[in-house]
Amino acid sequence: MSDMFQKVLVANRGEIAVRVIQSLRELGIASVAVYSTADRHSLAVKLADEAICIGDSPAVKSYLNMQNIVSAAILTGADAIHPGFGFLSENALFAQLCADAGIIFIGPKPETITRMGDKAQARATMEALAVPVIPGSHALTTLADAQAAAGTLGYPVMLKAAAGGGGKGIRLLATEAALRADFPAAQGEAKAAFGDDTMYLEKVITSAKHIEVQVLRDQAGHTTIFPERDCSLQRHSQKVVEESPCATLSAAGRAHLQQLARTIADGIDYLNAGTIEFLMDQEEHFYFMEMNTRIQVEHPITELVTGVDLIAWQIQIAAGTPLMLAETLPVLGAAIECRVNAEDPARDFQPATGAITALRLPSGLGVRVDCGIQAGDTITPYYDAMLAKVIVHAATRQQALAKMQRALREFDLRGLQTNVAFQQALLASPAVLSGDTTTNYIGETFLTQWQSEVAG
Amino acid sequence: MSDMFQKVLVANRGEIAVRVIQSLRELGIASVAVYSTADRHSLAVKLADEAICIGDSPAVKSYLNMQNIVSAAILTGADAIHPGFGFLSENALFAQLCADAGIIFIGPKPETITRMGDKAQARATMEALAVPVIPGSHALTTLADAQAAAGTLGYPVMLKAAAGGGGKGIRLLATEAALRADFPAAQGEAKAAFGDDTMYLEKVITSAKHIEVQVLRDQAGHTTIFPERDCSLQRHSQKVVEESPCATLSAAGRAHLQQLARTIADGIDYLNAGTIEFLMDQEEHFYFMEMNTRIQVEHPITELVTGVDLIAWQIQIAAGTPLMLAETLPVLGAAIECRVNAEDPARDFQPATGAITALRLPSGLGVRVDCGIQAGDTITPYYDAMLAKVIVHAATRQQALAKMQRALREFDLRGLQTNVAFQQALLASPAVLSGDTTTNYIGETFLTQWQSEVAG
Repeated sequence: MSDMFQKVLVANRGEIAVRVIQSLRELGIASVAVYSTADRHSLAVKLADEAICIGDSPAVKSYLNMQNIVSAAILTGADAIHPGFGFLSENALFAQLCADAGIIFIGPKPETITRMGDKAQARATMEALAVPVIPGSHALTTLADAQAAAGTLGYPVMLKAAAGGGGKGIRLLATEAALRADFPAAQGEAKAAFGDDTMYLEKVITSAKHIEVQVLRDQAGHTTIFPERDCSLQRHSQKVVEESPCATLSAAGRAHLQQLARTIADGIDYLNAGTIEFLMDQEEHFYFMEMNTRIQVEHPITELVTGVDLIAWQIQIAAGTPLMLAETLPVLGAAIECRVNAEDPARDFQPATGAITALRLPSGLGVRVDCGIQAGDTITPYYDAMLAKVIVHAATRQQALAKMQRALREFDLRGLQTNVAFQQALLASPAVLSGDTTTNYIGETFLTQWQSEVAG
Repeated sequence: MSDMFQKVLVANRGEIAVRVIQSLRELGIASVAVYSTADRHSLAVKLADEAICIGDSPAVKSYLNMQNIVSAAILTGADAIHPGFGFLSENALFAQLCADAGIIFIGPKPETITRMGDKAQARATMEALAVPVIPGSHALTTLADAQAAAGTLGYPVMLKAAAGGGGKGIRLLATEAALRADFPAAQGEAKAAFGDDTMYLEKVITSAKHIEVQVLRDQAGHTTIFPERDCSLQRHSQKVVEESPCATLSAAGRAHLQQLARTIADGIDYLNAGTIEFLMDQEEHFYFMEMNTRIQVEHPITELVTGVDLIAWQIQIAAGTPLMLAETLPVLGAAIECRVNAEDPARDFQPATGAITALRLPSGLGVRVDCGIQAGDTITPYYDAMLAKVIVHAATRQQALAKMQRALREFDLRGLQTNVAFQQALLASPAVLSGDTTTNYIGETFLTQWQSEVAG
């Protein structure tokens, strides 16, 4: 028997805070919303059982302020904290602070967050588990070493900072001449950003899909592997549209992928919900990219094709409930998610801010909207531009695409520019209709066509 | 190969008009909304591809005006008309008028509408098919005949006008003294209302559930029988909450019920979507009540537990597409629907009218809202009080009940009184939690308790 929580604090904002509050209420658990001063009238605050201010509008003073959040949990008597995604959700120190305060962090153990958060450790772990990673070099500090390694890998290569992320020190290099020209500057960026000029190279997998696998694993080691998500539709490495299942993956490929995911989840004794991201090439070879040790934005498509409430299971697993799902789950139909962002695609996706003067969301059979906004809200520059997610479910992918077009047409938000029209055009493009998309499709093909059509 | 429609006119208003427009759009068929002057700014008008005014606000001048509607279909070049429910949906003359104008009526043949719409014919048909009907008398014109018949049936009995409906001439009679006292007045009412004083008696099935079965049947006679709906939660014979499946029905009872439904659908060579309504007593004996030869308000719960779009199939069957579903369908989880009405339960459910100043609908995993209203709409006394339907789907009935409570709490409509708080109290009552409800539960048990709580 598990000891179910009485009260859980949701350390996030926007639609994911609303989403967690909804599952808490259905489980009969009281919810505490935290909010910055900018969010004091937010939907999450209205829907939670109680709400507590944790600081000023900039995230660093509120949603990233670990001490304030742990204090809020202690003050309100919360048994556990759900971190959502972003903010502190993959911060091992925060998970440890929670544990030290006697509050359960709804997620994996701090050491797992650290291990998967560090690129080199994660890569070494996969190699030890015989999981393919993107072929790459070892640590490099000189141009000569880099030239030798690139010659072995074959061009194009991706040059990256070993310590880093966030785009600092990263270069896509098509030739040895480019490597010679760019190596010093990239190394300088790495040194400036991370205090460490160690670099490494990765082979570039061309025409690849981004395929990821959701897993749940309980305290006793019972693991459920979910059907894959295809998140190839990206712009600047930001996901735009996600779907499940992948339209082009073979049954044999799926079985192999699920075995890889199981090997990883069991191999690192994973706890709670996580997602393992792979690149898949045209021959259905999978290369581990990273593991996200938290719930993801696109989790709803998995919920719709399996009927499983992933957030409810995160909460239950954290409370010690045994995971009562099969080891793998069949795929029921097809689901697609579109992220609705406050941005202007015609002006290079500049963030849009201002007041939402009216809002009418799509509805009806097979349409789900996860939404953290309401009419009257003001969208500020402090946070992520994502306003809502439109998620559809139908018997077939073709029907799901038709349903998404219908739903996007019903989406009626006034006062702000959004990317809804861009999404409608994207979903009508031939590559999306056939499912034959790769991670470079939007940036290298669709965006150019779309911009010329919008301009023309 | 069927010849799919290019354009369909939706001869209805409110949420069912929106619902039909949504399926039309997903099928790639253009939609025509019709509207009365009161509805000119309605959501259905906004969502349809085109819209045409058919008359003044009173339904008799617009939504019941057959000539105007058929003319609108001809003017807009519609191939077919979807009648929704209510209004002209069970009007055989209208179906015939459509056929005469070369427009396909999306529903059964006119003669089937007539046959099932006439109580005596429907009853005779069931007897011929060996389907049990509520034990009753033959036609009666004198008190002496009525006394004899009631003695055979056993009290309590229901006295009804043979020609009638709408409550005219109906009396629930517990004793022979009551029959003697009430027969003359009831007969007088029947004569006044229908020009015919023929009466009949029905046995009263006490502690019964209202159980109904959705069927689809195509032009070639292929029939799909859907899992049952339990619509026992009624007030004055108006459904309030519906669910699928029935929480208390045994597997043997379900198989028997489905066989009865198949016998009827095949026996009358039914076409398109229909619902057969039964009373079920405590021993799971079924008694045919009536067949509704149209889609019903509560069809969404069936869609959620089967994954089938019933409206899309209505349209496709009418266009000649073969029904490509199994003969029976498994039940996936549990679904519940609550009707949200503009009414004041604390003042005897008086209709509420006025402007909707703000509207925020529930959302998230497993929550569907079928809604024909929007913020800014004015609710007039011209039409039915139903504003929206909140429909939930979860793996178990218990989870569905928790989800419905969560969804109702999120339902935020300002400016008008609604029955949402009444629904929340009803769903929390012990009989509803156990599923052990009968058609008299609200009227004879719950309402009294609730009224005393509200007053106290």
